[in-house]
Amino acid sequence: MKIVQCVPNFSEGRDLEKIERIVEVLKNKEGFKLVSYEPDGDYNRTVVTLLGDPLKIIDAVVEFVGIVEQEVDMNTQSGEHPRMGAVDVIPFIPISEVTMEECVEYANIIAKKVNEAYNIPIFMYAEAANEKKRVKLPTIRKGEFEGMKEKIKDPKWAPDYGQPEIHPTFGVIGVGARIPLIAFNIDLMTEDTKVANNIAKAIRFTSGGFRHIQAGPVYLDTRGHVQVTMNILDYKKNPLYRILETVKMEAKRYNVDVPSCELVGLMPKGTIINSLKYYYAVEGRVWDKEITLEELTQEAIKYIGFRDFDVLKIIEANI
Amino acid sequence: MKIVQCVPNFSEGRDLEKIERIVEVLKNKEGFKLVSYEPDGDYNRTVVTLLGDPLKIIDAVVEFVGIVEQEVDMNTQSGEHPRMGAVDVIPFIPISEVTMEECVEYANIIAKKVNEAYNIPIFMYAEAANEKKRVKLPTIRKGEFEGMKEKIKDPKWAPDYGQPEIHPTFGVIGVGARIPLIAFNIDLMTEDTKVANNIAKAIRFTSGGFRHIQAGPVYLDTRGHVQVTMNILDYKKNPLYRILETVKMEAKRYNVDVPSCELVGLMPKGTIINSLKYYYAVEGRVWDKEITLEELTQEAIKYIGFRDFDVLKIIEANI
Repeated sequence: MKIVQCVPNFSEGRDLEKIERIVEVLKNKEGFKLVSYEPDGDYNRTVVTLLGDPLKIIDAVVEFVGIVEQEVDMNTQSGEHPRMGAVDVIPFIPISEVTMEECVEYANIIAKKVNEAYNIPIFMYAEAANEKKRVKLPTIRKGEFEGMKEKIKDPKWAPDYGQPEIHPTFGVIGVGARIPLIAFNIDLMTEDTKVANNIAKAIRFTSGGFRHIQAGPVYLDTRGHVQVTMNILDYKKNPLYRILETVKMEAKRYNVDVPSCELVGLMPKGTIINSLKYYYAVEGRVWDKEITLEELTQEAIKYIGFRDFDVLKIIEANI
Repeated sequence: MKIVQCVPNFSEGRDLEKIERIVEVLKNKEGFKLVSYEPDGDYNRTVVTLLGDPLKIIDAVVEFVGIVEQEVDMNTQSGEHPRMGAVDVIPFIPISEVTMEECVEYANIIAKKVNEAYNIPIFMYAEAANEKKRVKLPTIRKGEFEGMKEKIKDPKWAPDYGQPEIHPTFGVIGVGARIPLIAFNIDLMTEDTKVANNIAKAIRFTSGGFRHIQAGPVYLDTRGHVQVTMNILDYKKNPLYRILETVKMEAKRYNVDVPSCELVGLMPKGTIINSLKYYYAVEGRVWDKEITLEELTQEAIKYIGFRDFDVLKIIEANI
């Protein structure tokens, strides 16, 4: 059975009644699951996570875009998160029995349908990009909704679907395909943000660190300690254990403990298996291929140190 | 006084008498010092380190290339290290009262002289590159001596100096200018090259590792174990200790010891200080700013695990 993850982001994170009206169309559908929708008031944005049959997801998301078109007017919207449309992005992520090439196809199918239904221009990004300079979403989104009115008229920025004119209240959408991105935070038992910042610099690409890591420091007011917060853009090339052990190595020079870590959103089970294989090998334990998702969860807590973690953090447990 | 480091590498590391005949011309010269020449039998390559007046170095190295031309025939040469010429590379490195721009000029002066004297084609690389795709030496060197016969005829790979035809016994030379590069090799107590390759992949940029690391596996026949051999292109952003500790972390999964490492050529004292500060902090030791170069050498052997190491490996001890 082909399974994809689809993570539409829409530009309303405050009006909870409106958010309910919007996500209603994604609830209790046959063929896929609404795993979560996470509104953020500061960002004024909601991240929706869908999991299931790609073609069923496509039909529902087309409908969902139509509802957002009625509910959200970008001319009066503002928030901390950059955005270029009422639905800002629709990425497809291959999960099971689906190739990246197929996800690129799904992205093109939905882009065409949405454009035809609502006359919203579409930019294809990430693996679905048709040009190198459109691979990175921030490059496309630069100028945001307000700047896109002019930008889209530049022939260099003609949309991949639709006319070079934004939808007057909706803007434009970025539709893409990409591998799963892991949002991973590592706890440091200190209140000193400088320590978190120095360690973030050691591991993140922009300061010379690992190629697929974006990282920064954050102070957790409610918990009273700092974290290195990061996105792992390619968890196969930059596995969790390697990043975690490098952070521990750096923390030693500050005499700071690294007791736990957390995952924001979901991750494929391969991410955990990847890292457990390392810790098993270090201990001389044999890897058991028959491990269940529940056992995998317990081992991840034990070896990687996840807190606030349960089996539903694993994508495959939601299928 | 203007001081540069110049590090010609030539493709003979086994015939010690021949090596003596070649380096003779660099000994006891006025204006610069032959800091070291390090033949490697497995690599079949010798790294020469010169330090001093750039114009004096240029004259002597032009003469040296002429002697290598007489002594080394690339048609019968083979070794573990990739190479495209009998003298493979001639990089200039600014050390004191010299800018990078001046080093680029010196590189062009010697390139022109060598080409005119011996009809050897020259490729300019690193900071001296005339095209973006020639910045990285491995891109130029791809195909090596054997492949260069055809590659150089491709208009895209026309040499920066000379005709598009290799010197029949010498090949071609890469001439460049760059910041100090640390040639660092980490010993792994196994004969399994696959282990060295997996670890090299974990740390090197091209496979997702640290941004300023080029690394690969090598088997040392004379010592009976493998190494991760690497260039650290920016030792401030990718300090030795971080790379060494990451290699140790990865080696644990193979149950392989990492007892020692070696430095090919020289390094600025800042490289050692950088890493000793880490190990001192881990042990709770206070850093002593008044440390002498001799003491620094002993501490580097103790903490970083250098073998075949002495104070003259530090650039500052040679000035």
